[in-house]
Amino acid sequence: MTSVLTDNLSLARATTHDALRSSIERLDPETRHVCGYHLGFWDRDATPTRLPGKGIRPELVLLTTGAAGRDPLTVIPAAVAVELVHNFSLVHDDVMDGDERRRHRPTVWATFGLSAAILAGDAMLALAGEVLAEAPSPTVGFAVQALAATTRRLIAGQAADLAFESREDVTPEECLRMEADKTGALLACSCSIGPMLADAPARYAAALAEFGERVGLAFQLDDDLLGIWGAPERTGKPVLSDLRSRKKTAPVVAALASDTTAGAALRALYRREASLDEDELAKAATLVEEAGGRRWAEHRAAAELDIALGVLADVFPDARRAAPLSAMATRLAGRDH
Amino acid sequence: MTSVLTDNLSLARATTHDALRSSIERLDPETRHVCGYHLGFWDRDATPTRLPGKGIRPELVLLTTGAAGRDPLTVIPAAVAVELVHNFSLVHDDVMDGDERRRHRPTVWATFGLSAAILAGDAMLALAGEVLAEAPSPTVGFAVQALAATTRRLIAGQAADLAFESREDVTPEECLRMEADKTGALLACSCSIGPMLADAPARYAAALAEFGERVGLAFQLDDDLLGIWGAPERTGKPVLSDLRSRKKTAPVVAALASDTTAGAALRALYRREASLDEDELAKAATLVEEAGGRRWAEHRAAAELDIALGVLADVFPDARRAAPLSAMATRLAGRDH
Repeated sequence: MTSVLTDNLSLARATTHDALRSSIERLDPETRHVCGYHLGFWDRDATPTRLPGKGIRPELVLLTTGAAGRDPLTVIPAAVAVELVHNFSLVHDDVMDGDERRRHRPTVWATFGLSAAILAGDAMLALAGEVLAEAPSPTVGFAVQALAATTRRLIAGQAADLAFESREDVTPEECLRMEADKTGALLACSCSIGPMLADAPARYAAALAEFGERVGLAFQLDDDLLGIWGAPERTGKPVLSDLRSRKKTAPVVAALASDTTAGAALRALYRREASLDEDELAKAATLVEEAGGRRWAEHRAAAELDIALGVLADVFPDARRAAPLSAMATRLAGRDH
Repeated sequence: MTSVLTDNLSLARATTHDALRSSIERLDPETRHVCGYHLGFWDRDATPTRLPGKGIRPELVLLTTGAAGRDPLTVIPAAVAVELVHNFSLVHDDVMDGDERRRHRPTVWATFGLSAAILAGDAMLALAGEVLAEAPSPTVGFAVQALAATTRRLIAGQAADLAFESREDVTPEECLRMEADKTGALLACSCSIGPMLADAPARYAAALAEFGERVGLAFQLDDDLLGIWGAPERTGKPVLSDLRSRKKTAPVVAALASDTTAGAALRALYRREASLDEDELAKAATLVEEAGGRRWAEHRAAAELDIALGVLADVFPDARRAAPLSAMATRLAGRDH
């Protein structure tokens, strides 16, 4: 049984890749070209490339389905759908955030313009629902609803993130809720939609949704830390980039909200109209650290990962079944380096 | 039977309105406010208003379901879903087209900014799929797929429309395909998704989809004519507005493609860098007419309406069953004035 599932996992990965690629064939030529560029299938001038995303979310769909004792090959539509929703949100968020680079390439709007980016995001969101709805499963309706509710949380998270830009009183808990919506929700969905679609016992979907939500938050907190103290070769972003754009990520919000001298100094820097020079950026990073923002985010990420691994151990008494998931969780939370 | 269905139709209209309104309650407060503004439930400052859209698409869902012998009250989720998809496309199209006014008010992006407009459109698209997927019907999967495929056509139509802006060689047939995608597809879906969801005999959904597609094209062609020769108080747009923005609508494309002196003069005007003054706009309208663009569009609209009414007569031998639909088709195609 286990070795059959392992064989099926490899096949399911390849099948997911092919299904993702063929899903965009349904689109009109212009929109397909833009989506294929974003997904790394080809370059701006249609030269084939091999620059796919990391595929974390489809991998979670397949792994959780296998762990729940179901065949990953039966949940390919769910794996494709979560990847499409993820990429819809990336393309639209890049427009809203004005980000010009992603995965070491110019973003869609920077390459093809605003309208093409809006349409490509719309297309991937619609395709996700379409591909998922076609899955031949009696429980497909639940999966479609779960994905739609997740999309609402992605939108809520992005709306909150944008609202934070003009607010000085964001609390760390509000920030965590925003990050749970922006990142936790889709990981929760990716960890539960496979077992749901494959009609596995309900306890798996429930536990794995919590697992995914917590891993997602740990992943986002680690990303926030990398956005200040990270290595550009790993993140694809310049060092201190989040401070340069004065983003209100969790470590920053915790520091800004702290009743410390460093917090007060950071608030003054963040309020300044003019952009910060390199020395001031380095100073801001030090202030976040001195105000306790770095330590707080590190502790919270570690706590979320611990809870996630505990949930996993509870629902899978046999640790071998959970091993690929716990390894992936640890990696996503940045605890493998 | 018929009078029960008529009673149910009134109730279904009211229920659809309430269901649309409560669907946006699921959204985060920021996005809900923006969607409610667009849908005419309240003003920019949250003052309640009563400025709903015409609700053509939900009305078609309810009427076609009744005509197919099913209870309109069972297809409320489909009526809400098509209205949400329609409004998603309006909000995003207004961004792409740079349109600042809609339904006699500033558009969403002009009121709340680009990011809010992108998110509000995304939210209505996701909500549409969610609301529809919740419908307690054994055929809900087909309805979800039909709506998703329709959304792809809306996107294809908008992509083509944008691509036409920089092309001089658009053919009338390409233009009609674009208009069928932008307007026909969602009317086809609105006319068939109700019978589909209510599990009416398949011949109804097939015939009503063709009816809706053709009515949609006639409706769009009439809208194109109104965009040049229309009454601002009916359209909410200034007179000659489509010529001012040099939109390549069907009558214009037919004129531009014609082998006439007027067509050549119009091509020269459309190629000019500088904007056109009032005299030149009036001249352009005359050239479209002289080149045969107006007559061609009028004939084509009339032909599409005729075919639509023929399809209706075939599938409903009892004309009384089809009467509300044929009346609505005639009105949408602008043949009632």
